[in-house]
Amino acid sequence: MKNANAKINAILIADTHETFVTRRIPEVRLEFGGMKGDRHFGMTYPSDSRQPMYPKGTEILNRRQITIVSEEECQQIADELRVEYILPEWLGANILLNGYPELTKLPMGSRILFPNGTGLICMGENQPCIFPGEEIQKHYETKPKLAANFVRSGYKRRGIVCAVERPGEIFEGDEVRILINDLKNPMQ
Amino acid sequence: MKNANAKINAILIADTHETFVTRRIPEVRLEFGGMKGDRHFGMTYPSDSRQPMYPKGTEILNRRQITIVSEEECQQIADELRVEYILPEWLGANILLNGYPELTKLPMGSRILFPNGTGLICMGENQPCIFPGEEIQKHYETKPKLAANFVRSGYKRRGIVCAVERPGEIFEGDEVRILINDLKNPMQ
Repeated sequence: MKNANAKINAILIADTHETFVTRRIPEVRLEFGGMKGDRHFGMTYPSDSRQPMYPKGTEILNRRQITIVSEEECQQIADELRVEYILPEWLGANILLNGYPELTKLPMGSRILFPNGTGLICMGENQPCIFPGEEIQKHYETKPKLAANFVRSGYKRRGIVCAVERPGEIFEGDEVRILINDLKNPMQ
Repeated sequence: MKNANAKINAILIADTHETFVTRRIPEVRLEFGGMKGDRHFGMTYPSDSRQPMYPKGTEILNRRQITIVSEEECQQIADELRVEYILPEWLGANILLNGYPELTKLPMGSRILFPNGTGLICMGENQPCIFPGEEIQKHYETKPKLAANFVRSGYKRRGIVCAVERPGEIFEGDEVRILINDLKNPMQ
């Protein structure tokens, strides 16, 4: 099994009813279910258009508790859209990672371990949707069609969703260890 | 995304303290966390030697709620061990599936959907350990070294572990639909 290291450059939470846009906080306790107060917190949540195998609104297991993006992939999206930068806030991300550029390719079942033992488990790549594109558009008003173009530019760069495997405090600046799951001989 | 169909040929539960060996029941309600009363029931459970990234006994997210084996793979193990059959009971399996022979290869994130909408999500392959081998040995006393040989013969045939994604009743004889996750373009 391969390992890697990366750094937590921002922790963010979506804790207002009005928007999915996140705001930076210096630290937070991860519980089973995610970040308390965040709009994606919960061991279960109502299914949406991402889970067409269930009627919309069905209570299902929440594997999308924490979303993580990589700084490098955000910059790739920005470069392709010809804007200066894309902030993790606009994507509704909870964690901004630096030092593991191809985060979106991290296989399901991989672990992200924090210095104090707190652990996340990767539940797969996130798929771009239109809402973050609309948010990006607001910040670059003179650039046409950013919202639509984001879906294409964000493809395979949109980061991952995780579940909390082991609760604990996490801090901006934490150095994390990534255990990369080998799907041919997977971790348990 | 590819689909497949299969049949639930047995439902089994490990509901005594003494053993991991399961016994057949005609139906059961799957809750978030698994089968109530089963030794693997729970949204969380204490980590063991399978999760060396955490100190043994740490409370972690339970992705091993329901174990499923395929009848075909059990027969392959039996053939290789030169015994008549291997029962799912001896492996501590909760569900015996027929009609999807290469169950162990089912990718993480795949869904198993029951006729009434109950849903399981595949959390990856199970890895053979020594205990089921010792159980098999008990039933074929005259065959030497079955316990040790099971680990090798069970490799990549030991079935999968699942979490309950959507609760509901399941019944012996249910025909299930399997949504096979394409890891290049994964389901959400």
